[in-house]
Amino acid sequence: MDQFTQHLKALTDILGPDRVLSAAIDTFGYSYDGSPEALSLAFQPDAVCKCRTTAEVSQVMAYCHRHNIPVTCRGIGSGRSGGAIPVTGGIVLALDEMNRIIEIDHANLMARVQAGVRTKDLADACLAEGLFYPPDPSSYAYSTIGGNIAENAGGICAVKYGVTADYVMALEVVLADGQVIEVGGKMVKNVTGYNLVGLFIGSEGTLGIITEATLKLLAAPAYKGTAQACFTGIEAACETVSAALEKGLVPAAAELMDQVSIQAAEQFLDFDAPAATTAMVLFDVDADRPEGVLSQLEGLRALAEAHGATRFLTTTDPAESAALWQVRRKLSSAVAALAPDKVGEDISVPRSALTRVVRDLNAIADRHDLRLAIYGHAGDGNLHPAFLLDLADPDQKKRLDLALDETFRAAVACGGTLSGEHGIGISKKPWIKTALSEEVIQTSLSVKQALDPKGILNPGKIF
Amino acid sequence: MDQFTQHLKALTDILGPDRVLSAAIDTFGYSYDGSPEALSLAFQPDAVCKCRTTAEVSQVMAYCHRHNIPVTCRGIGSGRSGGAIPVTGGIVLALDEMNRIIEIDHANLMARVQAGVRTKDLADACLAEGLFYPPDPSSYAYSTIGGNIAENAGGICAVKYGVTADYVMALEVVLADGQVIEVGGKMVKNVTGYNLVGLFIGSEGTLGIITEATLKLLAAPAYKGTAQACFTGIEAACETVSAALEKGLVPAAAELMDQVSIQAAEQFLDFDAPAATTAMVLFDVDADRPEGVLSQLEGLRALAEAHGATRFLTTTDPAESAALWQVRRKLSSAVAALAPDKVGEDISVPRSALTRVVRDLNAIADRHDLRLAIYGHAGDGNLHPAFLLDLADPDQKKRLDLALDETFRAAVACGGTLSGEHGIGISKKPWIKTALSEEVIQTSLSVKQALDPKGILNPGKIF
Repeated sequence: MDQFTQHLKALTDILGPDRVLSAAIDTFGYSYDGSPEALSLAFQPDAVCKCRTTAEVSQVMAYCHRHNIPVTCRGIGSGRSGGAIPVTGGIVLALDEMNRIIEIDHANLMARVQAGVRTKDLADACLAEGLFYPPDPSSYAYSTIGGNIAENAGGICAVKYGVTADYVMALEVVLADGQVIEVGGKMVKNVTGYNLVGLFIGSEGTLGIITEATLKLLAAPAYKGTAQACFTGIEAACETVSAALEKGLVPAAAELMDQVSIQAAEQFLDFDAPAATTAMVLFDVDADRPEGVLSQLEGLRALAEAHGATRFLTTTDPAESAALWQVRRKLSSAVAALAPDKVGEDISVPRSALTRVVRDLNAIADRHDLRLAIYGHAGDGNLHPAFLLDLADPDQKKRLDLALDETFRAAVACGGTLSGEHGIGISKKPWIKTALSEEVIQTSLSVKQALDPKGILNPGKIF
Repeated sequence: MDQFTQHLKALTDILGPDRVLSAAIDTFGYSYDGSPEALSLAFQPDAVCKCRTTAEVSQVMAYCHRHNIPVTCRGIGSGRSGGAIPVTGGIVLALDEMNRIIEIDHANLMARVQAGVRTKDLADACLAEGLFYPPDPSSYAYSTIGGNIAENAGGICAVKYGVTADYVMALEVVLADGQVIEVGGKMVKNVTGYNLVGLFIGSEGTLGIITEATLKLLAAPAYKGTAQACFTGIEAACETVSAALEKGLVPAAAELMDQVSIQAAEQFLDFDAPAATTAMVLFDVDADRPEGVLSQLEGLRALAEAHGATRFLTTTDPAESAALWQVRRKLSSAVAALAPDKVGEDISVPRSALTRVVRDLNAIADRHDLRLAIYGHAGDGNLHPAFLLDLADPDQKKRLDLALDETFRAAVACGGTLSGEHGIGISKKPWIKTALSEEVIQTSLSVKQALDPKGILNPGKIF
């Protein structure tokens, strides 16, 4: 029996024959994820292990550790930076069947879930009990909590409610050698020992396998409202958002769309902007009383009009709100329809640098003769520039590569970074030295070495 | 020239003669901190290095690293767990002269400060510009930001505004070997590489020396109110707080006082509770509009009365509010006046376990015939039980030791932990294995080994 067959047999002994996949037709679906990485046979895992319990994950990890088998963990594979792609072969550890909501604890306002629970399933289960799990990455209908934590996913409501990291109270983690640890707990304040919870969050599966999480919940806000603000300049749009935050008027969402984004919406969605509109912000606000919603909407109106808004629509009607939001919800598809290909990015800059980086990005697009749409989370300084082109044209592809390189450098040059919510994975690994100093990288690698001395956890990622 | 003299000369070459202290009379003041640890000559450092710049810290660390000299970092020495006590000699690295507020950045709502800035100085400087730095440990008038970060200090307003960790966006850290790294940044969302910012927070000076910090600010809330709620049982008090949070009515403070605390207040402060009162909660609320304050106060009133409150006073007048709060502000002194000695602790439990742990703590005090006052942050499940006794009596001291041991075990037994905001240091190190599994400790020690392979940073602490 050759070594590969031996490994398969050992893994099958742990999981049973149905949950160890090794036929090429089965493993192919685990060779790519939601990132723009091109399909490659080199990315096909040797086997896929579908675990259902922490004990199984522990046994699989112990075996892989003993035999130096690379392990790439995967939720639903919706990641945007190649984090779930097994670039060095080995096994994919699939956790999408660990999808149990273990507990919704009202007294402590926390939920305990397995890693494979879909974000929306948790959010819906909470809402049904009057509770609120805020993080809402745009993939939330299918992405899993484990993946959200491993990438520290953000979302639209981060400006008021923060990102995934802000909700993780405790984690069960299987270490590289199969040991199971529980870090954190249901206490709100906890300064006993190092913040290992925080270390695992955003570590992209390179330090341990997250199998369960305890997440903080909030009371669901009782009243909501939406505003659509149109401007004749992107500076006015950004300044309106900043002015609101500085006054303590913190919207639940503040989504920016630039001129090209608006054109896409006008062309493909049910939307018309006033003449000369070149920027739009969609706001959501929420409060525990109707007056709170109205006063926030009026506060935003005053600021938007002071910044020359050409239109300021508000509503507290859920159907009208959904109609205003469909422009943003479907924007990615509408923008994509403008060209054969769309390459969407994710940069994060200090909020004060928003207008500068938008100007820089447009200059980059002009320089390389590429069409660019910019939209994203203005309240966080987290933008998703989308280059529109035909990737089949080698010359356009070459210009795109140059433009992406300049995009990341522009973000870093104004005090920002490579990624606000998608992670580094393999997609942005080539630029990691642009964003992090050699000393920070070495410090990070020493932590990696400490937790995964054999380097079997998601090899080839981040650094 | 002996080795010690050589070291002194080298450090003096870096800092000049006035900022390297080695006379016993000078170093004595650096042998203790705000913890209950007994004075000991064994804790006197060999020398104290008072640094004023990051470059100086870097040079001192590089020298100490080369020569295996232990380094204990110190802000103002107000820590409550012995974190700043140099238990193995070597040098104390004093950062209290690095006290410059470098920048208050309105556009990004952030401040950049040196580590030695006092918390209150930052809070006041922000408030003068209409901004709000929320973390308010009770030591905030003299404790330093660097110490707050190293211990992840909490405070009264954590129930609404979180703890120090929630405000740290970026850190400048001098590593064990003198290398200077900058981690994090002014971007709100950042998923580039590992969360090293979070790793240094709460690491008690054992992983690196924090020299500068970039801190998130909020707009100062425009309107405030205070409520005093008296109850005939501690369960009713705790349940009122939980019910408020579950409704989304999040007060800016929810401070619990038990019967003994109330007796101390009645005896030594200007305070009278209604007959049969055995528990009290002081609430602060804040909002951007006066109606928001009033509606929160009325919401709390309804809940308190539903839980049988014997008194519910409210005010929005700052002077009246201060008068209500003086009971809490001076409570520690009032409680201390009940006995020759007061040993105050800091445990943190899931909020749902508050009444259970209060019952357990009272049973422990009864069992060991000790008087006990319990007060603390009900909204966070973070309690400060204070044992009242005469430490000069060896028998009482012995009973206290047993009671403290049982206190920590009781906290852990109900899902809580050793410390909510004071840290472990040396004071709670004997119980670390009660709270953390052997695997978690080994994982933590591997991180320590990665960042400080020679073990010179604050040796003898936490684990």
